[in-house]
Parts: sequence; structure tokens; C-alpha cells
Amino acid sequence: MHICKYFTTFAANLCNYRAMANNTFGEKWSFTSFGESHGVAIGGVLDGVPAGLHIDFDMIREELERRAGKGLVGVSPRAKNEPDEVEWLSGVLDGVTLGTPIAFVIRNKDARPEDYEWLKHTYREGHADRVYDQKYGIRDWRGGGRASARETAARVVAGCIAKQQLAAKGIAIHAQLVQVGAETDPDKFAQMIADYQKEGNSIGGIVECHITGLQAGVGEPIFHKLQAELAFAIMSINACKGFEYGTGFGGVTQPGSAINHISGGIAGGISDGSEITFRCVFKPTPSTRKALEKIVPTDSAVGRFDACVATRAVPVVEAMTALVLTNLV
Amino acid sequence: MHICKYFTTFAANLCNYRAMANNTFGEKWSFTSFGESHGVAIGGVLDGVPAGLHIDFDMIREELERRAGKGLVGVSPRAKNEPDEVEWLSGVLDGVTLGTPIAFVIRNKDARPEDYEWLKHTYREGHADRVYDQKYGIRDWRGGGRASARETAARVVAGCIAKQQLAAKGIAIHAQLVQVGAETDPDKFAQMIADYQKEGNSIGGIVECHITGLQAGVGEPIFHKLQAELAFAIMSINACKGFEYGTGFGGVTQPGSAINHISGGIAGGISDGSEITFRCVFKPTPSTRKALEKIVPTDSAVGRFDACVATRAVPVVEAMTALVLTNLV
Amino acid sequence: MHICKYFTTFAANLCNYRAMANNTFGEKWSFTSFGESHGVAIGGVLDGVPAGLHIDFDMIREELERRAGKGLVGVSPRAKNEPDEVEWLSGVLDGVTLGTPIAFVIRNKDARPEDYEWLKHTYREGHADRVYDQKYGIRDWRGGGRASARETAARVVAGCIAKQQLAAKGIAIHAQLVQVGAETDPDKFAQMIADYQKEGNSIGGIVECHITGLQAGVGEPIFHKLQAELAFAIMSINACKGFEYGTGFGGVTQPGSAINHISGGIAGGISDGSEITFRCVFKPTPSTRKALEKIVPTDSAVGRFDACVATRAVPVVEAMTALVLTNLV
Amino acid sequence: MHICKYFTTFAANLCNYRAMANNTFGEKWSFTSFGESHGVAIGGVLDGVPAGLHIDFDMIREELERRAGKGLVGVSPRAKNEPDEVEWLSGVLDGVTLGTPIAFVIRNKDARPEDYEWLKHTYREGHADRVYDQKYGIRDWRGGGRASARETAARVVAGCIAKQQLAAKGIAIHAQLVQVGAETDPDKFAQMIADYQKEGNSIGGIVECHITGLQAGVGEPIFHKLQAELAFAIMSINACKGFEYGTGFGGVTQPGSAINHISGGIAGGISDGSEITFRCVFKPTPSTRKALEKIVPTDSAVGRFDACVATRAVPVVEAMTALVLTNLV
Repeated sequence: MHICKYFTTFAANLCNYRAMANNTFGEKWSFTSFGESHGVAIGGVLDGVPAGLHIDFDMIREELERRAGKGLVGVSPRAKNEPDEVEWLSGVLDGVTLGTPIAFVIRNKDARPEDYEWLKHTYREGHADRVYDQKYGIRDWRGGGRASARETAARVVAGCIAKQQLAAKGIAIHAQLVQVGAETDPDKFAQMIADYQKEGNSIGGIVECHITGLQAGVGEPIFHKLQAELAFAIMSINACKGFEYGTGFGGVTQPGSAINHISGGIAGGISDGSEITFRCVFKPTPSTRKALEKIVPTDSAVGRFDACVATRAVPVVEAMTALVLTNLV
Repeated sequence: MHICKYFTTFAANLCNYRAMANNTFGEKWSFTSFGESHGVAIGGVLDGVPAGLHIDFDMIREELERRAGKGLVGVSPRAKNEPDEVEWLSGVLDGVTLGTPIAFVIRNKDARPEDYEWLKHTYREGHADRVYDQKYGIRDWRGGGRASARETAARVVAGCIAKQQLAAKGIAIHAQLVQVGAETDPDKFAQMIADYQKEGNSIGGIVECHITGLQAGVGEPIFHKLQAELAFAIMSINACKGFEYGTGFGGVTQPGSAINHISGGIAGGISDGSEITFRCVFKPTPSTRKALEKIVPTDSAVGRFDACVATRAVPVVEAMTALVLTNLV
Repeated sequence: MHICKYFTTFAANLCNYRAMANNTFGEKWSFTSFGESHGVAIGGVLDGVPAGLHIDFDMIREELERRAGKGLVGVSPRAKNEPDEVEWLSGVLDGVTLGTPIAFVIRNKDARPEDYEWLKHTYREGHADRVYDQKYGIRDWRGGGRASARETAARVVAGCIAKQQLAAKGIAIHAQLVQVGAETDPDKFAQMIADYQKEGNSIGGIVECHITGLQAGVGEPIFHKLQAELAFAIMSINACKGFEYGTGFGGVTQPGSAINHISGGIAGGISDGSEITFRCVFKPTPSTRKALEKIVPTDSAVGRFDACVATRAVPVVEAMTALVLTNLV
Repeated sequence: MHICKYFTTFAANLCNYRAMANNTFGEKWSFTSFGESHGVAIGGVLDGVPAGLHIDFDMIREELERRAGKGLVGVSPRAKNEPDEVEWLSGVLDGVTLGTPIAFVIRNKDARPEDYEWLKHTYREGHADRVYDQKYGIRDWRGGGRASARETAARVVAGCIAKQQLAAKGIAIHAQLVQVGAETDPDKFAQMIADYQKEGNSIGGIVECHITGLQAGVGEPIFHKLQAELAFAIMSINACKGFEYGTGFGGVTQPGSAINHISGGIAGGISDGSEITFRCVFKPTPSTRKALEKIVPTDSAVGRFDACVATRAVPVVEAMTALVLTNLV
């Protein structure tokens, strides 16, 4: 059975293809993400944005550059070469939201499916290649298709609209890298990442995020606790391996009498009006040069990895946090 | 407060704009619709379409022409002048679905916001103009914005993908116009509609839809009965005023002993394996020439109405039926 | 394979049992229904009722009697013999809602599974017996299980809470029987139904429902139009075969110029602030004495049918309408 | 404005009471939780359980005892004194599921609202008392109402049904306490907790959970990654402050080349067929004797706290994990 030249078919049962469904985040304020890493375009639809919001396009451009790793060391060359330009298809007029669904598109200019030809017949260790074949029966091998971190560019655009809407209510979200490897001094991060890149290796990092200005009362007390909603959103980011807030894992060694007063900004699943702080950890990418050299024939593909994905995850953490909050406030 | 030149602001409270939310139909197989009638484009995202489906693009073109009223009498000139061309942004490669979200766009070529300048200061009787201002505080007056029937073009594209997927399982959907005014002879429909158009008036119609090949067992027995899902989908079509299946309203005069055997293809909310037949009624458009002449200054706008919207609703009825079924089978 | 004595197993595939899922109506204000007709109890959980609402228990009792057919002719004896007593398990204290989920139970006192022993080996024409076996592989034959109209008692309780909440906002719902067979004079309904009962036959009816006091702006303009939400809810009632509002099916014979001004209380899917009127039709029950005598051995079972189910559907129509509105206002 | 004697009203705006909504977990296989800690009963409704499952009631009894802390040190006396007896209202017959909604109830025998009279006028540090008043305007002070950990008993019953259904597919879930304070030797946990209890203090703990037998392919690749679903469920448990899987937070110090091979059982958001391991941390309860003595007048209330809530969280972790998986497999 011929499907198409961009698919690989490793799996036995060809007749029972599934959909990679559930590409929507949120209900009241929903973001539907679409697009393949090396297809025509990626993009999204935002449903639930109120009318009358003035869009700050400069901020969106800056956030996309931040996600692309502008000014950072150890970043894959694709991100640098392909400035993300957003086309607005609906829901925005004269820079103001109409209240209707906002559809936007980022075309893939630097799409080079041919660079990934070798992936057609290979499963990369630590990647989703094998499980995609196991689950879906077929796999779009062009740069990972939907599994690629490129999808997070659409999240960042959505997150910018969300952050601008939240800002109008006095709510601010600020994330930053607080640890790389065992290092916690930010001044030493760049050198450390450069060293890992040089040796063709990669390293993990921890991102800390602060929410300020959020009123008391956000979150529901049983299953939809605010911390559960945040964990759900953050753990959906590629390479994220853990989430903690308030006293977190470190608090386990402290008696109740010593840490009773620390709420982390949330009590009983509901914001208490104070600053919310949470942390999340990003694993080093398994696509290191060391790992790729064993299986990849061309140099251009070998160079396509990030030495520390946590650096570029920072704006994505902010974006997902913003998507959670616009659904709740 | 300046918003934008395409808004009207009749309502008192300018500070509390809402979103026109809930533009998604279905959960397992979802269709998110976007786009303003006279904006950049309309379009949609389909999430849940399985991989490996070969798309029949000719059928989509034909269905869009059918919706546009090709070959029909009494149809608004815009529909005729603007052939709908679909651009595929994701989820389809070499004509085959990837299993990922399918995003598509139809650009608005014949968008003429200036034709609707008069609408800025007017509420049309029988239209949503007034309630939009009441609910949203602002209103996109360019051809009705999202309220325009142009939005149904995106439904037709989505419905075509759904129908093709259903066809692969042997399920067929066929709708047709069975009544115009009091007339039930199809050979006399065109003349009747032409007469109404000539006098600047409009008339309603009844569409009947048949579902064949659907296996027994589709539908849930309490709130999500198959007939409830169908009614929900069909009643969401502009100008639809009623839905009936099986013995319908006409059955009220018959004793149980006479009509016990008629199931309409559904028993206890669940398909029984026999053909399903339902009917729906479309009101004549209130935008008749007679009505418009009183409030519209220009001729081009006056001509933009359909003498019998039921004719163009036929493919939309099929599309919405298909969306219901792909979510259930 | 032994399952249990109250199941029948007609279907071939015993290994693939399914659930009769989706027993929840609404999201913001949700009602989850449970219970078998001849099991321990029926009941429900309401999630989303605000705190501080004073419950009118007398009104609930009266509505349950109305659904049971108190004072009506042609009603099944079970309904008469079994007064429905509601036990409140949570969410209500001293007659006031706590804002937490409200769980309530109505025990089945007159449960007589033995009366339905004959149903174990029979499919009744016009009932869901056959499709239940086809879909679920097994069937609870004790009085229809979940398919029984007894389930609507839980809907009525939920609807009462909803109506009381709506009443606090000035919104009233009033349904009434407006046609039985071809008869539209209410004074002649009782005699007509008695005649049908006497001859062991049944007849259909039309219920009309009025919503007053609803503010403009309720409903969403694309898929979640107010009329679509109402149709979904009403068509989920057993035996309902059609729904119409505004100009309905009758309006098909009128030109646009004659009926432009009739909105039915909804424009563009959104309430316009005027009274909303809709109508729905109920088929006669197929369980007439005539039909049952052919397949049922005992007299007590033969007598268990309603000559005109539309009479008892009236409070259920009000209840489902109230559930729609509490989710939207 | 009088509401009821069990409410406190600290908040200013009495007219705008909200609901504590969203008490349902899951869609395909949903669990709706209800009941106040010191009301009539707690319980739940399970919707989506297939027919034909033989319930193991002994296992449910044992799991409830495990949650109540039977045989554990440092446990609140209420848990010990009140054996949880489950009454089944629907969906189960002769010990076999019917496929219909399963409603169950656990009556509160040891409800002693009077023990909490002092809470009426006090906000406990580290508890949800204040935010409840801020959000809902009123607060059920009887033992915390819905905020009480007693609600988790209903989760455990639901989780047992889920675990039994999963077991039929060869899927097993096993959680255990792996750390108390800084101690990781399980043999020393009991003594440590006893010491904290003795001094009226409390301590945190880490629970590790293993999922075995889960096939490859469970989870969706974008927002609904398996780890995101698990984190959402686990972070909804009272006192849980962090979630990690695979290399977790500890992996941050390791280079990619050293930990590439560790998947934690999930790749790209989808199970890869190997064992899944995750960990979560529980904060010590703020309701220590030390803290309570300052604000509580009676001895009986002072004694109502757990020295290490993590011990009783173990079966709840298993239950929530099971609820996630029954919704996905």
C-alpha cells in the first residue's frame, strides 16, 4: 500500500491508522495548534480572545526571537536562519482583536526535508520515532513532524496574546533559567553551554517562573487545582521532566513547623493573592552530535541540535503559563 | 475610545467586550472554524482525522460550487463571482492525510467592505445586528462578519473530509430539497424561486437528508442520543427553524398501532442499522430586496441576497451530518 | 460465560462489552444522571450550583407528581403507586445550597423485576431492546434499565433546582400540551386520551414551551446557537421526534416579507430579549396493550403503559430547558 | 442575610456566591466526586465503566483501610474510628458492572461538626480557609467541607474500580513511600513519624509509583502527553507539591550522553512499553498540634492531624494514576 514518500512504515498493521488528536489547549480560551516542522507552515487558532485588545506585534516578534535563541550560545542553526514571520488570517483588524477566532500562520522557509532522509530508516534513541510508528503505524520523518520543538513557536505566539490580555488585568509572568547542570550562577551559564556544544554533548537546566498580580480565588478545589492546571501545561513542553511549586521536593526535609507559612501562592488549589513561584526541569536533548554521528550521514543534520534546550524553553514556559491563566481569570 | 474603523459601537458599556467563543464542533473529530466574511480569509482546522486518507480534491471543489449555488437560480451574485479556492497548510501531503491537524484557508477575493458602509448605522430586521451589539458591545459590520453564511464554506470543506472518511466505511449521506413554499414537486422549484427573486422577495424550503450504511449501535442512550446530536448540528445552520426525524411532527395524528414500526433508523437514541431520514426547514432570508431598499443606499448591496437560502443549505446539511457521524463512528 | 441473572445476552461477541457512557448534561452547570429503573435507586449529581440558593422542596415534590402523572388520565399504574421521595446526600444544608456538588437519590420502591421476566427473551417493536443488545452485548431487561422513562424523574429534580436558580434572575419557563392527535382544544384532551387507553392504543402530542425574562445576548453565534442547544436537550427526551421554534415548519409556506419580523426570541443564535417559544412532538408509545398482548404473558405488565406520553413529558421539557439555560446565563 | 449556621461569611460581597465546580475527573471514563467531610455522606459516580467487570469488594475494603491509615503510626484518630462502608446505588448487580453509571456512597458516621465550631471565626495558616472565603464568599467550616482529605476516600473507591479494569488488561500500578524527611530507609519511617507526632509536629514524604504492563502508544504528542496527564492528576492530591518522572530534577546535573537512554517509560508524550516510574512529594500538614494549640480550644480537635500525610497518600496516588489510565487505554 502506497501512502506517501514522506512516511515511513515500520509497524505491522497498516490498516489501522490513527490520528494525532487533541491539539487544543484550554476550553474557555482555547489554542489549537497545527503544522509540521518541515511542511508548508505551522500556526494556530485562538478562540475566546475578547474584542478590543490592542495587539503588540513587536513583543510577539521579540518573543519569537527569544524562543529561536537569538543571542544565545549553543543553539541549532535552523532557529537562527529562519526568522518567524506571523501572518494573521482572521480575528485581528487594524491591530485590534475582533473577539472572533484569531488564526495565524508561520510559513516554514527553511524547510529541508532532504536533510532528514536518513531518519526514514532509523529510530533515534531518546526520541519519539519508535513510539510514533508503534502508535500511528506511520511516521512523518521530516524533522520529527509534529514532535519537533518547532511547534512551540505557535505556542509562543498564542502565549503572547494571552500575556497581553493578562497584562491588561495587571498580571505578569516572568520565567528565567536558574540552573544549568549543577551551576546556579547565571553569569556562568553561557560558558558552560558553549563547552558542552563544543564537545558535541548537551546538558539540562531548571527554569523558574513567577506569576505576580494574580488575584486571590483562581483555581478549583478538587481536581482542577491551580497547581494541577499549571503542571499539566508545563509538563506538556518537550523535554520537561518535572514540576514543583512552593516548598517543592526540597521541602521534604523540613518539619511542618518550619515551612507552614510557605504557600507558594496557592492554598487548597486556589490562588491566595501572593506571588506564585514554580520550577520545572528540562532534560538535555538526546540529539547530541555524539549520538547523531553514529547514525547520520550528513554534516548539516549533525549540527541541528541545541546544547541546552532549557534556554529556549524559557519563553515557552511563560507562554504555557499564560494559556493556563487566560482560561481561569 | 477608538477601537477600529470596521466596528460599530452602539452599546453602552464599552469596557466589557466579550469573545464570540465556541467555534469548535466535535471532540474526537473536531472542526474549528475561523474567519470573517470580508476579512483576509475564512478557514478551519480539523483535528482527529486519521492518517492515510486519500483526499478527493475534485469532490471538495464541486461541493463548494454546490454551496455557492452554481447552476441555481435566485442566488446572490457574490457567491457566483468568487470561486472558493482551498489552500492546505498542514496535515495533508501528496494528497494523503498525515493524521495531524489539517489546517485550510479560503481567501476572500471578493471582499468589499465598502458595500456594507450603510450597515454601520443600521440594524437589519430579522438579522443578528442588534443582538451582536447587545452581547459583544461592538460589531463587525462588514457583511455580517462571522454571522455571514459565508462561514458555511468552511463547514463544507470540513464536511467533505468527513464524508470521504465515512465513505471508506460504507456510510453515505444524501440531502435534497423536498419543498419550496407549499410546492413539493422538484421540477417546479426553480421557476418558483425565480418568481420570488423577480419580485424582490424570498421563500423558505425543507431539506430532507438520508444516511445509509450506518451500522447499528451509534449514539448514547441518555443525553447524547443520535437524534439529539443531529438536531444540535443541523439547528446550528443559519436560518434553520426546525428538525424532525422518523414520524416527525406529522406523526402526531396517528395512533401508536399505526406507526409503531417506524423507527426513522434510531431506537432509544441508538442507530438500528436501517436508513436514517431527517428533515429540516429553512426560513426565507429577511434580507430581501423589498426589505433592503428601505435602508440601503447602493444597488450592489441590494442585490446581495438569496431568494431561497434552502437551496444552498443542502450541502451544508450534508456537511454537518458528516461532522456528527465522524465523531461517533 | 455467566454474567448475572438480570442480563440477557443475544449478541455474538461476549468479550467486548461497552459502557453506556455520557450520562452528564452540561459543563458549567452539569447534571450527571444514574440509576436503573428496577435497581436500588435512581438519582443524580449537580455540579456548578452556586452557594446560597434556598431550595423549594415543595415545588420539587409537585413537579415529581406532575411527571408521575398525578391527576392525569391514561397513566401507567407504576407512576401512580410509587411516590418519588428525594434524599439529599450532599451540597444542601438547612435547605440552602453550599455551592458544592448536590447528590440526590430516589429509591425504587415499586421495583418488580419479576414483572419483566418475559422481556428476557423478547425484543419489543419500537423499543431499544434490540439495539442495546447490538451495541452493548448485554441488556438489563428489568423494565428497560436506563432506557426506561423513569430516568426522567432525576431530570425533573435537576430541572427544579435549575428553575429555582433561574427564577432568582427573573427567568421563567412554562410548557404545556397544545395538541393531542389532531385535537388542539385542551378541554378535549383528557377524553381523547381516555378513549385511546380504553382501546389499548396510544396517541402522540405536541408540547409548546415559553421562556420569559431571558436577557438579550444568550447563545454563541456559530455552532452553539441557542436554538441548537435547546434542540439538543429536547431531542434527548424519550419519544421526542421533532423540535421547531419561531416560524418553524409551518413558516415554509410564507414569503420572507410576511414573516421577517418573527424572531422566535432568537436572532443569529443569540437571545434577543423577547419571549422564546419552541414546540416539540412526542410519538405515541409503542408499548400499547395491543402490542404487548402479543408477547407478554401477565396482565400486570400489559397494563404498564401510558396512552399519551406527551402528557408526562411536559415537566421534562421544562427541566431540560432549564438545564440548558443555567449553563448559559 | 442569614444563610445557614454552618457557613461563615467573612467576605464583603454576599450577593455573588459561586459554585465550587469542576468535581469531575476524566471524560471517557469519568469520576464525579461529591460530599462534605462532615455532611451526610461522601461518594461518587463513575461513568464509562464497561459492563461485565466483576468487582472485587474485598480489595476496595482493603484500599479504604490503607487510606485510613490502618496499621500506620501518626494517623488522625478519626480515620481509625470510622470504617468506610460503601453502599452501591446503581451500575452494579450481583457484583458485576452493568455498563451504566456506578453511583456509590460512604456515609459519614463520625461526623462531629461541633468539634470545628472554633474554625468558624479563624483562618488556619497553610489551609484553604481564607481563600475559600475570598473566592466563594462563604465557607463550610465543618472540618474543611470539600477541602478535607476525607474526599480522597471517594477517589480510592473510584481508583479501585479503575485498577480492577486495568488489571484485566495486564496493567498494574504500585506506589510506595520512598522517603520521609531526609530518611530513605523504609525500616526507619515508622519511628521517625512517631517521633514527629510525639512532639506535635509533622514531616513530608516522597511517594514513588510504578506502572507496569502498559502497552506502547498511550498518550497524545502535543498538549495531552502522558506525563502531563499524570502530573495533572497527581498534583490534584492535597499537599502534593511536586511531580517528576524519568530523569526528573536529579537528572539536571548529568550530560545528555550519560542519560540519553533513560525514557522513564514515556517518549514524546507516548508510553514506549517499558515500565513507567514517577515520583511526587507531599508537604507536612500545617495542622500540627503545635499550630492548632494556638487557636483551638478543645483537645479532641487538636488531635485530629496526621504526622506524615504522605503515608496515607500512597493509595490515593495509585487511584489517581488508575483514573488517568482508564481514560487513555
